[in-house]
Amino acid sequence: MRRIIFLLIAVATTAGLVALVGPAPGHADGQSAPYVTDIPNGYRDWRWISSAHEAGNLNSLGAVLGNDVASKAFRAGTLPFPDGTIIAALHYKNVPSDENNKVFGQAQSFVPGAPTNIQFMVKDSAKYAATGGWGFGHFADGKPGDAAFMKSCFPCHEQAKGSDFVFTRYAP
Amino acid sequence: MRRIIFLLIAVATTAGLVALVGPAPGHADGQSAPYVTDIPNGYRDWRWISSAHEAGNLNSLGAVLGNDVASKAFRAGTLPFPDGTIIAALHYKNVPSDENNKVFGQAQSFVPGAPTNIQFMVKDSAKYAATGGWGFGHFADGKPGDAAFMKSCFPCHEQAKGSDFVFTRYAP
Repeated sequence: MRRIIFLLIAVATTAGLVALVGPAPGHADGQSAPYVTDIPNGYRDWRWISSAHEAGNLNSLGAVLGNDVASKAFRAGTLPFPDGTIIAALHYKNVPSDENNKVFGQAQSFVPGAPTNIQFMVKDSAKYAATGGWGFGHFADGKPGDAAFMKSCFPCHEQAKGSDFVFTRYAP
Repeated sequence: MRRIIFLLIAVATTAGLVALVGPAPGHADGQSAPYVTDIPNGYRDWRWISSAHEAGNLNSLGAVLGNDVASKAFRAGTLPFPDGTIIAALHYKNVPSDENNKVFGQAQSFVPGAPTNIQFMVKDSAKYAATGGWGFGHFADGKPGDAAFMKSCFPCHEQAKGSDFVFTRYAP
């Protein structure tokens, strides 16, 4: 989950690469978008699954939250995740905390700064059959990523096939 | 909240400093411990307030969760926090994620490793009147910190008096 944003940036900044990725197939009935286009309700109240920090250019600090279905599955180690699972990754700039560092006497404390994006994985094995049963969503300032941007999600998550395409592990 | 563990370590490793800190007064009726000695029920289900990363010797990655009273107060910016507020800081070793880094092609992804400790702040303005209305708790492997260890909590949090002794800010 968390590494996808890096890949998205890599893809977005690599001229021509997007063109090499074929269009993600939609639902067989042709009615469903292949991506998550609406922010799931109430995600900010969901249970904490884990935190994540990406150093380097991404310089991100955030958290992964899960709805009831997701948190139960994470805790029980259920694979594949059942339909109804929704996983949310909340990303922020990784910024030093000046007030914390005053107490420490050195620049060692980092906290979430400005929000950068929110990403979702929604499990619906029929609707999203073409992408491992997962619908992917990406929202920055409340606006969904466009189709070209979203094409990079599944190819990256495919590398986590052994954990049902989910990278995040539950923090006990 | 999160910086306290660093201070605790600093205090614990600075010979003699603990002796300079006076004993934390107990409750006026003499019946209540000045520290939180039991892990609050259900804390792992509470809402996510923020994440925190401490670099340096502490090398920590974790999250701050809040019970209903806490999360409502954080969201509304209510100060002081009302009685009944409980804030939990879950700390883990900050470790590289080998499987994430394989995708990135470099060591940039960090996730929570082994749990190190859980800390709590419990607001009860009568019971903990001597320490700003907050009871402090620290648990490693389920065992509470001893009194000498716990004496360092309030002197550190006193530096955050302007935010009712709480360092953590709500991540939107």
